[in-house]
This record gives sequence, structure tokens and C-alpha cells, in this order.
Amino acid sequence: MKAEIISIGTELLLGKITDTNSQFLSNALSKLGIDVFYRQTVGDNPRRLIECLNIAARRADLIITIGGLGPTVDDITIKSTADFLKLDLIQSKYVINQLEKYFKLRGISLPPDNIKQAVIPKGSIIFKNTFGTAPGILTKKRNYTVLMLPGPPNELIPMFEKYIFRYLKKIFSPKLKIASKTLKLAGIPESVVNNKVRDLLLLSGPVTLGIYATSGEVHLVITVKADSEKALKAFTEPLRKTIHDRLGNFIFGEDSELIEEVVGKLLKKHKLKISIAESATGGLISSRITDIPGSSDYFMSGFIVYSNESKIKILGVKKNTLARFGSISGETASEMAKNARLIGNSDIGISITGIAGPRGACPGKPLGTHYIGLFNGKNMFVKKSIFTGTRQMIKMRASEEVLTILWRYLKSL
Amino acid sequence: MKAEIISIGTELLLGKITDTNSQFLSNALSKLGIDVFYRQTVGDNPRRLIECLNIAARRADLIITIGGLGPTVDDITIKSTADFLKLDLIQSKYVINQLEKYFKLRGISLPPDNIKQAVIPKGSIIFKNTFGTAPGILTKKRNYTVLMLPGPPNELIPMFEKYIFRYLKKIFSPKLKIASKTLKLAGIPESVVNNKVRDLLLLSGPVTLGIYATSGEVHLVITVKADSEKALKAFTEPLRKTIHDRLGNFIFGEDSELIEEVVGKLLKKHKLKISIAESATGGLISSRITDIPGSSDYFMSGFIVYSNESKIKILGVKKNTLARFGSISGETASEMAKNARLIGNSDIGISITGIAGPRGACPGKPLGTHYIGLFNGKNMFVKKSIFTGTRQMIKMRASEEVLTILWRYLKSL
Repeated sequence: MKAEIISIGTELLLGKITDTNSQFLSNALSKLGIDVFYRQTVGDNPRRLIECLNIAARRADLIITIGGLGPTVDDITIKSTADFLKLDLIQSKYVINQLEKYFKLRGISLPPDNIKQAVIPKGSIIFKNTFGTAPGILTKKRNYTVLMLPGPPNELIPMFEKYIFRYLKKIFSPKLKIASKTLKLAGIPESVVNNKVRDLLLLSGPVTLGIYATSGEVHLVITVKADSEKALKAFTEPLRKTIHDRLGNFIFGEDSELIEEVVGKLLKKHKLKISIAESATGGLISSRITDIPGSSDYFMSGFIVYSNESKIKILGVKKNTLARFGSISGETASEMAKNARLIGNSDIGISITGIAGPRGACPGKPLGTHYIGLFNGKNMFVKKSIFTGTRQMIKMRASEEVLTILWRYLKSL
Repeated sequence: MKAEIISIGTELLLGKITDTNSQFLSNALSKLGIDVFYRQTVGDNPRRLIECLNIAARRADLIITIGGLGPTVDDITIKSTADFLKLDLIQSKYVINQLEKYFKLRGISLPPDNIKQAVIPKGSIIFKNTFGTAPGILTKKRNYTVLMLPGPPNELIPMFEKYIFRYLKKIFSPKLKIASKTLKLAGIPESVVNNKVRDLLLLSGPVTLGIYATSGEVHLVITVKADSEKALKAFTEPLRKTIHDRLGNFIFGEDSELIEEVVGKLLKKHKLKISIAESATGGLISSRITDIPGSSDYFMSGFIVYSNESKIKILGVKKNTLARFGSISGETASEMAKNARLIGNSDIGISITGIAGPRGACPGKPLGTHYIGLFNGKNMFVKKSIFTGTRQMIKMRASEEVLTILWRYLKSL
């Protein structure tokens, strides 16, 4: 079973927006065991779209189009697909009804422009759009199947998860399933990981391993093809174990697990509460920690103390410390961690102070220099790190380092 | 002049990573007046890559490949391109030299695996990679031109900006240039904007208008094709003016300007300092504000007060207020804003308290309910809003709303 994705929109080809939809769909299809060997992107142009449909039809069983289902003149997907498959268009009463309901909820009657969205190829299957007006449309003719999905990710994703995943699973039950497992590492450079798994990266056959680095994390992705759940597991497990034997100490989680989530679980497990004092990261660490549902169980307070004045006034950092060692110092980080813990009434205080740039570097303290402090009421851990990149990259890497330090500490308990 | 982009990597087709490179390149090429009508994505498979090169060669003057230039067996771009163009491969002394330098800086001698990266099609033009090992390679044969770029965005983007942009500008000087201008609106729903510019969205010809919504913002993109800078401006300006006449009140910025940047400029202009008290957004607003270089000039302190206890202890919210009105109330938001301003020693205090979910909804206060407060020392503004979506979407939308309120206030000064 092969699928091909066609993303439609001139704004994509102008680089105005990132195509996150095709990533989401690729991932979802691979979970269903459906191969995606090609993706295409094309503008709001009927002739070119039909060309792409032709190319895709030669090499895929299922074509999924994204976008171009709106009410405007730019929205050409339905008409082009009907032309390509030589199918008649009809007005769907069901869709008209859905549209009327949608607008009624918003206190307006169905705008004439939107009626276009109900004109679909005869014999199509309709998938409901809970968050917008364009329905999902599945159209078949002979051995061609085209599934048209709306472009906004907040419409496409819920529609896929709620209706289409189940439909595809039922209709296309592939003989070979694909499974993948991602092992996520922190606190170790990509080159060191690469070196440790060099032989495994060369594996070919039913099990393969890939390596990817993101800001501060290294991901090892095991991909397996097999004909049963049992076989998938039988192939995955030995490789997973080998990697754990070599690098287990640095693996914080698997698959979609985030380090802030793992940290959250460990804080809950040990019934520990945390407060954070951030200077250069400006709230990013607190924001990442509080992205996790239920984080109010362990996250007490965050202090964003940008200026020396606020470090003194709000966090009680000593004037003398700042004068003697500077705000970017282990001493300042220590006092920040200590007092964040105290004022935040927490078990753990963690802090970071540094230079995110582009200004602020000074002799002996280059751009990217950061000090991180962690205080648990007894011991103080201080670490100095230097990060490179743009201001936002530095903030991201610094937040990753703090979460890694916190994770390693919690794991050691 | 037409270009086509081919992104290469099985990890793309498995949905493991987002293809931000092709967006970057699409945008950069459109600035050069080079049309991109199609993009393709393909895995690490020589036969399929050559198929994509064949398709692209039929419809583009310049093919740009992304990825597959690394030292591993998975990296198939150079060999496949040479096969496609029927060109011999040679070992480039220049690249070997660059590689040796690269590894010497890191204290290691050139690993044998990396020598592969210096084997390139005869007669290629080389572009230096400042941040990695794979050079950019431009290869020509007859009327085919293939430009191979490395996959990591932090290698591709600097290489493009430093060397390739200039090269392409010199080589391909298009007759028709493309310009685009984005007008960014906040505090107004997409449907209302859509209604106000309905006629303009139907424009065809040298000037077109597109409408896109992101979390809390609406972007109107004017795209123009013309043969001179002067003509570009002559086409853009009248439409820009028309939109300003109709919606000027909601336009906060243009092109790459962010609302946090505009807010920062206004704070600087009026010499105002700000402190922020965040509950549900957990530091996201402070982090967005401090993403802007130089924000330490106007951002004083951030208080992330998640629990009632921290609202009382750190921000001095009255117990009585919390007991009578609850933590999600205009009264609590007001006290948070007032005290953030006071403790943060700022001109403006701004606050937000709400329910980001998935837990926490209660009778009369559905999921997504937020109260925002702004206090300037004299007047208190309070606004209630309800946001929908996942926890992260709600956080993002809430942060956008706070920045919009702040922007509107600063603009009114």
C-alpha cells in the first residue's frame, strides 16, 4: 500500500508558511504501515495540480491532497480532482446542512461563497470538519483513490485523528507493517553517540537505525518492517537493548516523550516541588515545564529576573555578590537557585544566568556563557556552559541544558 | 527562470522532521524573482531520486537538492546526480583541504568516512560550509543545472545567505522580479478581515492578495510581479494604502516583524518599563518578549505564579480576593498586574490568569477562560477572553492576546 501526499498552496511555494501537515500525515501513514515514497508541493494552479495528480497516480494507490478546499477562487482542489478523475460534481445536501449548522452556531446565515464547499464529486465519502467549514472528501474511480483534506492544521489534524485514521486502518490493511521507536538522549554530543552506534547505523534489512540531532538532544530512530506486531517487537527489542547497553545513561525517553514531561514525571514520583529563577532564558524554561498538563502539581513559581535590580529586589541576590563576581557567575547562579527555592517554598531551586546575545559579551565571558545552579536544600550544583547560535537558539539550548541537569539529578535520587 | 526544490531524506517521509529548508529556499528564491512551481520530497533511494531529477529537469532550469551529502551510506545525492547527468566523479583537493581544516580545529584527523564528501562531479562549483562538513555543489551539463545543498538548516541557511544568494543573483538575473509585502493584523478575527478585503482577494494580474491566519494574527500578503524595483513599488503601494484605509487600526507590523518586537519598540520609544505576572501561560509571554535582542532595556521582571500560594506570597494577591472571586477572575488579574508593576519597579504591570487545560474547568469558567489585567499606575484595564484548542494552542493564543492588548495600549499613548 503506497500513498503520495500533494500539498497545495501558492503560499507554500513562496515560503510564507511551513508545511507541517505533510509531516503529520507522513508520520500518521507510516504508523498505519502505508508507505510514502514521494511528496509533492504545488501552487493554486489547476493545470499544474492535475500534472501532479497524474504523476502521483502512476506510483501510488492513495493520493492525499492537502489544502485548496476553501470558499475562495484560489481553492481549486475539488474541481481539479474531478477533472482529473472525469467525475461529475454535485451539491451535497449533507455538507450544506453541516455548513448551515456551523454558521448558525456563530449567529450568521450561510454566506453564498461557502456554498461552493458543498459542491463535490459524485459518490464521494465525506469526513466531518469539527473546527472549520471544508469537509474531508474521499473520491474513487477505478483504481484511483484521492482523499482531499483541508489545509489548516487545526482542522486537518483533528479530522485525521478522529475519522480518517480509523477509516484507512479498516480499508487498507497492509501485509507489512512499519514500526518505529525513537530513543531520545540528552547531555551527550551527537558525534559521541554517532561513534558509539556507528556499526548499527549501517544496518540494512528489516531493521534500520537513524540518528538525528535537535537543539541539545540526539534522537536514535529504529525503523522496522514486519508482517505482525509480534515480529515488529522481536526485531525492535534486541536493537533497543543494544543501544541501552551502550548509551542507557543518556536516554531520557522514547518516541513523543519530551524531556520536560520526563522531568515532570520524576518530580511527581518523588513528590518534589520546584521553583525556577531565569535570567537570560526569559521564562522559556518555565514555559516548557508548564506546557505539560498537570504541571501545577510540582511547578511552584518562576522568577524572571533580567536586571541586577530585580535579582536583588525580588530574589535577594546580594549586591556584593553581583559587584564582586558579576551577574554571569556561578556565585550569582547559586544565590538565585537558593532563594528561588526559599521564596518559592519548594524542594528544589534551579537557576540560570547568562548572555543570550547579540549584546552583552565581555572579556572572559563570551557570548553564550551561562551558569546554571541547582539547590536541593543540602547540596549546590553549579555548571558553566557556553552555547552558540542566534539568540533564540541559545535560549533553546540553555533551556535544554537546564532540563537535562534537572533530569540527571532527579534520576539519581 | 524556474527552479524546483527536491528535499531528500527518508526521515522526512516518515514524518520524523519538519522540512523547514524548502520553506526557507522557496522564500529566498522568490526574493530573487526565481519562480518555484513545484517541490518534491523523496527518500534516501537512488532510483527514486533519479526519477525526481528527471521530472524536475523537464520543467525547471535550476534543480536544487537538499540533503544526502553526509558521509554515511544513506547519503546518495552526489552519486545519483552524477548518474543522472552522466558525469564522472573526482576527488576534490579543495574539499579535502577544507575537511582537514574542519577536523583539525576540533583536534582530530580527517575520519576516512568523510573523504566520501570530497568526491564530487567533475567541473563542479564548490560553496564553502562554515558550520559543517558537506560543501554546496553546483553542477552543470548542457541545459541542466543541479545545486546540491546540505540538509542541516544551520549549515544550509548560512551557506545560502553568505554565498549562494549572491551567486544566483549574478547568474540568473530575471526580467520579472517578484516582491511581496505582508501586513500583519492583531485583535481582529480572520472572517472580519476577509469580509473587508473580499474584493481585493479576487485581484488577478500583476498584484494579488492572500490571507492567512496564525494563532491570533491575520496576515495579508501582497504579491507583485514587475520588471523593475520602481514598478514593484508602484504596484504594491496603492494596495497597501487601500488596506491601511480599511484596516489600519489593526495592522501592527509588516513582513518579518513580530508583535513582541513592535511592542518592544513602542516601550523603548515611550521609555516605559514593564513587568509581567503570568499564571496559565507559565512564562511564555516573558519568553516571547525576551526573544527580542535588547529587551533588557524595558523588560524588568516576570513572575510565574502558578499556585494560589505563590500568588499570595510572591505577588501579594489578597487571600480574600482569591477566596471571594477565585484565582481566575478580573479581581485577581487586577491585583496581579498592580503588584507586578510595583514589585517589578515598572511603569506598566500586565497580568494573565486562566485555565489552559486540560483540567481545571469549573462551572461558569469553562476551559480556556482567561482574565488579563494591565495597570499603568492610574488606570486598570481588565479583559476576559476564552480560547480554544490544545493546552499549547491556548497558551499561544493567550500570549498573543496579552501582546495585542499591550500593543493597543502603547499605540494609544
